[in-house]
Amino acid sequence: MNLHEVSFVSLGPGDPELITLKGLNTLRRADVIYCPATLTSSGKQLSRSADILRALDVDEQHIQYFIVPMSKDRAAAMEAYEKLSTEAAASYAAGKRIAIVAEGDAGFYSSVHYVFEQLLAQGIAVQQVAGIPAFIASGALAGLHIVSQEERLMVIPGNTTAQELSDLLDAGLVVVIMKLSQCREAVKQCMAQYNDHTFHYFENVGTPREVYIRATKELIEKEFPYFSLMIIKKTM
Amino acid sequence: MNLHEVSFVSLGPGDPELITLKGLNTLRRADVIYCPATLTSSGKQLSRSADILRALDVDEQHIQYFIVPMSKDRAAAMEAYEKLSTEAAASYAAGKRIAIVAEGDAGFYSSVHYVFEQLLAQGIAVQQVAGIPAFIASGALAGLHIVSQEERLMVIPGNTTAQELSDLLDAGLVVVIMKLSQCREAVKQCMAQYNDHTFHYFENVGTPREVYIRATKELIEKEFPYFSLMIIKKTM
Repeated sequence: MNLHEVSFVSLGPGDPELITLKGLNTLRRADVIYCPATLTSSGKQLSRSADILRALDVDEQHIQYFIVPMSKDRAAAMEAYEKLSTEAAASYAAGKRIAIVAEGDAGFYSSVHYVFEQLLAQGIAVQQVAGIPAFIASGALAGLHIVSQEERLMVIPGNTTAQELSDLLDAGLVVVIMKLSQCREAVKQCMAQYNDHTFHYFENVGTPREVYIRATKELIEKEFPYFSLMIIKKTM
Repeated sequence: MNLHEVSFVSLGPGDPELITLKGLNTLRRADVIYCPATLTSSGKQLSRSADILRALDVDEQHIQYFIVPMSKDRAAAMEAYEKLSTEAAASYAAGKRIAIVAEGDAGFYSSVHYVFEQLLAQGIAVQQVAGIPAFIASGALAGLHIVSQEERLMVIPGNTTAQELSDLLDAGLVVVIMKLSQCREAVKQCMAQYNDHTFHYFENVGTPREVYIRATKELIEKEFPYFSLMIIKKTM
């Protein structure tokens, strides 16, 4: 029996057209597509990845969902990924062509990479198909030159403080903050202080509900949902 | 006469399959595709972008080259971009559908963004189509989780020193160095010092000449050509 490399396919940030040709071709060849989903408190299954797959006319019969717990409990998520690793390894051994999808890029703050490492450690052939990270799509939406010439970029996840942000801006860096919902107060403190910087706020980029705001006044009162990020850059 | 938005289309790092569907669809609708090229000292025209366009079966008759000087003389490059802005503005006014292509992502260390700003300042409708930056494709090639969980990423262009690199690594950051050819000695000094880090070296990613090396011994004697970059991460 022929065994086929397991592909980790990056879907990009949400707009189905932002998948790469390589990503789409890999999905079309797959027998099984493992797709992440979450459950709401009322038990409804949500999956942004599945929305993308459907818009791309991927055969629904190939999609197998795996539920990722939304809680911050890392152990629960790890358990879901262990289960996926076991299932994927079995499908691989059965000769299936497997794709495991991830939003954004599968190597950029993507917890499903744990499964990649698990399969690799078992000697299973794996490959990663690159995708558009959300901050790149956000920059394009706003028409930004995110970094140019000799500028430096710092990307930080949401676990930051007003002090860290101030230090980075004082050092002249361009700053991208992922998972913005975790650091609302720190960001708002900096917005009040740094009038010579522009705070580009993005929410649900690449989806019908996408939002781009760069007026500090509008942002001060705003809630930052889960799929939000910010690009902070000195105003030219 | 209808006027059509000028599209800045990101091609990704070199592999034609790493363009997005949106990028390819935009190219297919274009009447004119402005494509960067360089001239060798013997006058031969080189264009990685054109290689990508040809591989994607884009109509060659739509391609118009603009020559970007290879010298570090910024003024000469600016002159080329001024000329392109003027030409693109004229084609726009004539009702043409225009695409201007860029390798990697058009908003990420992409000097053609100057043209975007020029056209925007003239009140011309412009849009950016996101693409895969070279460092993202490099991470995928190596199967890396570039950044995970609470890790922070610093992206720096080639103008760095051994001291700056040491400071970044000591601070626990993941570091991406673009335009590596500019800082060969600084990087080699760090490779000798930081045995607990892995130095992932990439060259011409996404092309038939792509190279990935992570053995320090092999790298110590290596030349770093123009299209090279590095991802430095603490070894797990």
